[in-house]
Amino acid sequence: MTKAAHRIDPDTAHGFHDLWQARYGGGLSPSPPAAPNPVLQSLLAHRSVRAFDPAPLEEGTLEWLIAAAQSAPSSSNLQTWSVVAVEDAERKARLAEFAGNQGHVREAPLVLVWLADLARLRGLAQQAQVPIEGADYLDSSLMGVIDAVLAAQNAVIAAQSLGLGTVYLGAIRNHPERVAAELGLPPGVFAVVGLCVGRPDVSRPAAVKPRLPQSAVLSRERYSPSQTQGHVRNYDATMQSFYASQGMPVARWSEHSLARLRGPEQLKGRHRLVEALQAQRIGLR
Amino acid sequence: MTKAAHRIDPDTAHGFHDLWQARYGGGLSPSPPAAPNPVLQSLLAHRSVRAFDPAPLEEGTLEWLIAAAQSAPSSSNLQTWSVVAVEDAERKARLAEFAGNQGHVREAPLVLVWLADLARLRGLAQQAQVPIEGADYLDSSLMGVIDAVLAAQNAVIAAQSLGLGTVYLGAIRNHPERVAAELGLPPGVFAVVGLCVGRPDVSRPAAVKPRLPQSAVLSRERYSPSQTQGHVRNYDATMQSFYASQGMPVARWSEHSLARLRGPEQLKGRHRLVEALQAQRIGLR
Repeated sequence: MTKAAHRIDPDTAHGFHDLWQARYGGGLSPSPPAAPNPVLQSLLAHRSVRAFDPAPLEEGTLEWLIAAAQSAPSSSNLQTWSVVAVEDAERKARLAEFAGNQGHVREAPLVLVWLADLARLRGLAQQAQVPIEGADYLDSSLMGVIDAVLAAQNAVIAAQSLGLGTVYLGAIRNHPERVAAELGLPPGVFAVVGLCVGRPDVSRPAAVKPRLPQSAVLSRERYSPSQTQGHVRNYDATMQSFYASQGMPVARWSEHSLARLRGPEQLKGRHRLVEALQAQRIGLR
Repeated sequence: MTKAAHRIDPDTAHGFHDLWQARYGGGLSPSPPAAPNPVLQSLLAHRSVRAFDPAPLEEGTLEWLIAAAQSAPSSSNLQTWSVVAVEDAERKARLAEFAGNQGHVREAPLVLVWLADLARLRGLAQQAQVPIEGADYLDSSLMGVIDAVLAAQNAVIAAQSLGLGTVYLGAIRNHPERVAAELGLPPGVFAVVGLCVGRPDVSRPAAVKPRLPQSAVLSRERYSPSQTQGHVRNYDATMQSFYASQGMPVARWSEHSLARLRGPEQLKGRHRLVEALQAQRIGLR
């Protein structure tokens, strides 16, 4: 059951049960939703794409991605986010270098860098000569992060609907000062995540990645995820067969995940985030 | 042009240009996307819903929302998030009280509280007797926030596709300790955003909210948003006529936004976030 799950091609899987199978490797099968629809199907069929056709995107694509992004909710409608669209090959190469040397950053025709942005409102406050001390608190920075991520995820879904693939770059935070200098970010602005966008290279297709069972992430009324040990053991096995099917180095998910957080040296520069945010005048109070 | 924008009903607007008009009040009109599709249409038609039919959701709905949420990307596939589904009337009433006394928290049949969750991996590390010092850094907490928000936004889009409305509750962070106690959150877990979910009350419909023009949030190659002052003046006017059309108190967006961040007392408890996160053992190093 588990082994077959990832072989389903989401582009040809018309049933929700097929997509459910690919995401969870079987297990829980709720009744199909009251109104099966192409939006839900598209969400379930998502997978990150790391192999791109480098051809530029069709004209107007970026504007529709941004319209989708701006259609996401924004906390108190403050719109404390911005985005920089990078298409220049040399700038992409430098960003790739700053972000863990991932080849797809060079390959993708478009890299979007999503920014938490308190600078716009700080600028307005300065013009209006009113205090904006609230912007100095961690919660306001978090608001900027949340706004940026909501916008980015809408762009991801919009891109997929247009036949494009995407992959996030958390590694854009490996060297925040270099990214800030490269993109000319003013005080009050920092890069939360990057996003590669492009037409997927069909010769190197991506697969739907299985996730932990719902019982691991969902609780009712109070926090009480079900028996961690049992579901992690099963999920380790599911992911081992997934990696094998993708020709990737086979690892236990639990070991791989714990290795990623072993200590500061595994954060690849991100253990310096506080220092970098202070340099960028991001509120942490 | 601006005045007419918000009168468009996204449910009956079949053209992308109508939705574009509602979101921006005219202005930039790129050519329609190469492959207009229902996903993009649904994204552009989004609006937050604050008036709900309190009837419970159909069976299986929650599971599909969670499947959509788990289909969102996750940083390094660490899945550092969880969610608590609250349906109990008394618990919803208490959460409403903690979150700025917003009536729709009581009204919505389902409230989802999205959590940054480093506790699952900390638990695994303890079992495996390996260090997990990386979890103590701010970047890892930020990863949890990003994972939680990506998941939440997928659930929002899934809910909308099933005919449901949603509204985020940033105010769930007004009193983090009370929310943590109410939901039994262990160390390493904190509530990032809440989300009300339910069938929209058709007698109190919500409208698509206009946003800043794209030139205010989008830069090419380097950060350089266009002339803030000009577009803010226009946007203030757009929002004044939007609020008037909704029978809401008319305010300038810029003044309202600056008032929201004037000082710590305007943060309604959120100026204490650092203290609350420390109490919850969230890494801030």
